[in-house]
Amino acid sequence: MADSNIKTSISGFPELLPEGRRLEKAMLEKIRNAFTLYGFDEIEMRAVEPVSQLLAKGETSKEIYLLTRLQDPKIDLKSKKQLGLHFDLTVPFARYVSDNQGFLQFPFRRCSIGKVWRGERPTAGRFREFTQADVDIVARCENGLSAKEALPVWQDLEVVRTINSALVALRELGLPKAIIHVNNRELLQSAYEIFGVQDYEETLRVVDKLDKIGAEEVVSQLVKNGESEETAKKCLQISEINTTSADELTAKLQNLFASDFEKLRGLDELLQFLNLGLDTIVADLKIARGLDYYTGSVFETFLEGFENYGSISSGGRYDNLVGKSAGSKIQYPGVGMSIGVTRLLSILLELNKQNGNQDASGEFSPVQIMVIVNSEEERKDSEQVTEKIRKLGTPAITSPISTKFGKQIDFAFKRKIQNVVFIQEDKSLAIKNVFTGEQTEYKIN
Amino acid sequence: MADSNIKTSISGFPELLPEGRRLEKAMLEKIRNAFTLYGFDEIEMRAVEPVSQLLAKGETSKEIYLLTRLQDPKIDLKSKKQLGLHFDLTVPFARYVSDNQGFLQFPFRRCSIGKVWRGERPTAGRFREFTQADVDIVARCENGLSAKEALPVWQDLEVVRTINSALVALRELGLPKAIIHVNNRELLQSAYEIFGVQDYEETLRVVDKLDKIGAEEVVSQLVKNGESEETAKKCLQISEINTTSADELTAKLQNLFASDFEKLRGLDELLQFLNLGLDTIVADLKIARGLDYYTGSVFETFLEGFENYGSISSGGRYDNLVGKSAGSKIQYPGVGMSIGVTRLLSILLELNKQNGNQDASGEFSPVQIMVIVNSEEERKDSEQVTEKIRKLGTPAITSPISTKFGKQIDFAFKRKIQNVVFIQEDKSLAIKNVFTGEQTEYKIN
Repeated sequence: MADSNIKTSISGFPELLPEGRRLEKAMLEKIRNAFTLYGFDEIEMRAVEPVSQLLAKGETSKEIYLLTRLQDPKIDLKSKKQLGLHFDLTVPFARYVSDNQGFLQFPFRRCSIGKVWRGERPTAGRFREFTQADVDIVARCENGLSAKEALPVWQDLEVVRTINSALVALRELGLPKAIIHVNNRELLQSAYEIFGVQDYEETLRVVDKLDKIGAEEVVSQLVKNGESEETAKKCLQISEINTTSADELTAKLQNLFASDFEKLRGLDELLQFLNLGLDTIVADLKIARGLDYYTGSVFETFLEGFENYGSISSGGRYDNLVGKSAGSKIQYPGVGMSIGVTRLLSILLELNKQNGNQDASGEFSPVQIMVIVNSEEERKDSEQVTEKIRKLGTPAITSPISTKFGKQIDFAFKRKIQNVVFIQEDKSLAIKNVFTGEQTEYKIN
Repeated sequence: MADSNIKTSISGFPELLPEGRRLEKAMLEKIRNAFTLYGFDEIEMRAVEPVSQLLAKGETSKEIYLLTRLQDPKIDLKSKKQLGLHFDLTVPFARYVSDNQGFLQFPFRRCSIGKVWRGERPTAGRFREFTQADVDIVARCENGLSAKEALPVWQDLEVVRTINSALVALRELGLPKAIIHVNNRELLQSAYEIFGVQDYEETLRVVDKLDKIGAEEVVSQLVKNGESEETAKKCLQISEINTTSADELTAKLQNLFASDFEKLRGLDELLQFLNLGLDTIVADLKIARGLDYYTGSVFETFLEGFENYGSISSGGRYDNLVGKSAGSKIQYPGVGMSIGVTRLLSILLELNKQNGNQDASGEFSPVQIMVIVNSEEERKDSEQVTEKIRKLGTPAITSPISTKFGKQIDFAFKRKIQNVVFIQEDKSLAIKNVFTGEQTEYKIN
């Protein structure tokens, strides 16, 4: 269980020791760099939303934490003033765009890295408080532009390229290869229309569970929902298509749909992901993303060898989320993906531990030098050296103790500070690498 | 009102436009760099604590937000499972040290930058959700060491040096000079003992309000509390001492206490701050920090010209907070300070606006280049150029539109992207600074 590497004295609310936090910071830096490289502006979401806003998404209602003040505790779900903690960074972002539409440059590329809260039962890799890292692009439909004109599918590709770039960078920290599974809801919807499916949304929801419940159960549930046995089997067949090849995807669909092939929508869009030239993209036609607000491309991502942890980065295209929630007449189509940072961290800590990495972090302290104190009376001399080192921009501390050198060096070793500096009898300085034992003269310039 | 620069569609919960967030990020980077330079390990606190833990601090009880789950809403203040959002980063840190004492290297230097929540009424510079940046050093009293031996006063000096270094660095962004006001509670306590004060804590609380209620009212309230008129006046006299000179501080106290001078405690410690050689430290004997957990040094910080905004960085020495809250037999003395980031940001935004800075940020986008698209058919050519620029580590985007160059350049200008790159007819590249108009050849290597 990876979660044993993350401390939670309140179930589901993880906290990290300094070493674990160092690793998380290294992860966040790589993610943030990728997001910046691809041109996303970082904004931060407030932690709270009116519950009415959060409940507009339906499905997730049971996961919400409500807030009330100690001095005046009351819960009133009908009040617009009733606040809850946000459970993702997408719903608040949609509200943010509505609030600030007059001040943003569209298409607006934002990224956000922040905490979200869900009241659900904690399990392996699943927490009540955790960090997500999101990218989104939202356009504004002006001058009669349609959603697909204002936000063409190449923007969907940019989102995937960005997330892929972040996930590739995270491999430098030891994370396995991540495979992004792509599907298109319009493709499914047009296929279901051809099959004569009765209940589109319910079918999506059943098919989305294919990996969990298996093929037979999918067919049986669809039939129970009123679909014909033939339709149910066809829904299963299309869901089982899984390929990295654009040609194979086209051929399989031609085979399945024969003369109806031309009636399919969304296939051109899906094919563009396979033609990106990345070895991390697969078209996976069972991905449906539940009953969410997605209207086109949908994404889920799995780490090789950790598929059972669930998706570590999901998202999709949402053409109506922003305008809808604001009651606005202007349409703001969007596309985005979210990385589950805390889940990735718990996997990485587990891997490091398995590889025998002592503190499961592998990162040295950013503090590069500890200056040894020869005696308590000479502490000020050491402090002056430390201050000089800091003035040059090198993080440093003065040894907190003035006991034997061995004890002082041991303190640096335990804090993973790589070097100690000595003031020698002739007042010259020497630097010693705590981990290799190598010692040389040290000059501060 | 500085707060008009920060958007709050829910009162007290600020959110920033991308430009404001860019400025906040620049502030956080300077603060984080200073904290790292002085050897503090960054850790993060979970957002919640058991309310019993939060209430142990008494005074602040009315500011707490309680949590409950939507599916099972109930508030039970007597339950240990009742959670609330933390209102500062010190109380959770004390609990963190108790939770993890077996895994930390003492003296432990931590910094935390995070959100805190208070249910109080929002006013100028005062929010319900805001960001604090804290540094603390906590020692462990082992082998019979006293609190002052395990955590000598030079550690208090390190905390002040660190915060001062961060505040000096923030001036590069336009913040005025910050003056750190230092006092010592032992000094006040020993003075009050000499004066024959009846109620030490109540007197501290009254004296702490000197700036708000004035000298006469302080005396009158002390007398109402049962102190003699003479004692009350002496308490006022010592509170009015305010000096940057160690000699003057000593002289004034000698004058006030005459033969009792030797009975004062904590003066030596206070003098060390004035001897740090910094032009930003003042001994201010009215600083008391309410009824808090402080046991020695106490700090408050005011920005020149913005004194009415209140302290922008406060803290002090707390010798009993950690052990006490854990019911531990081992004592963990600590000292720390906290910077009110959101309050500083609101002041900085106001100053920038007054100085005519258009978007009140002054920061360019981290995206350095936008590649112009000659026509929608040639978008892929531009995307290839963008990808090459990104591969070199330079943040870049492809223009989202393919209309007239002027419109494209206008988009870059509004997003504060400094440069655009053109693909010229002969396929060579040119780069143009959007703000100066300067144009040169551009080669990607």
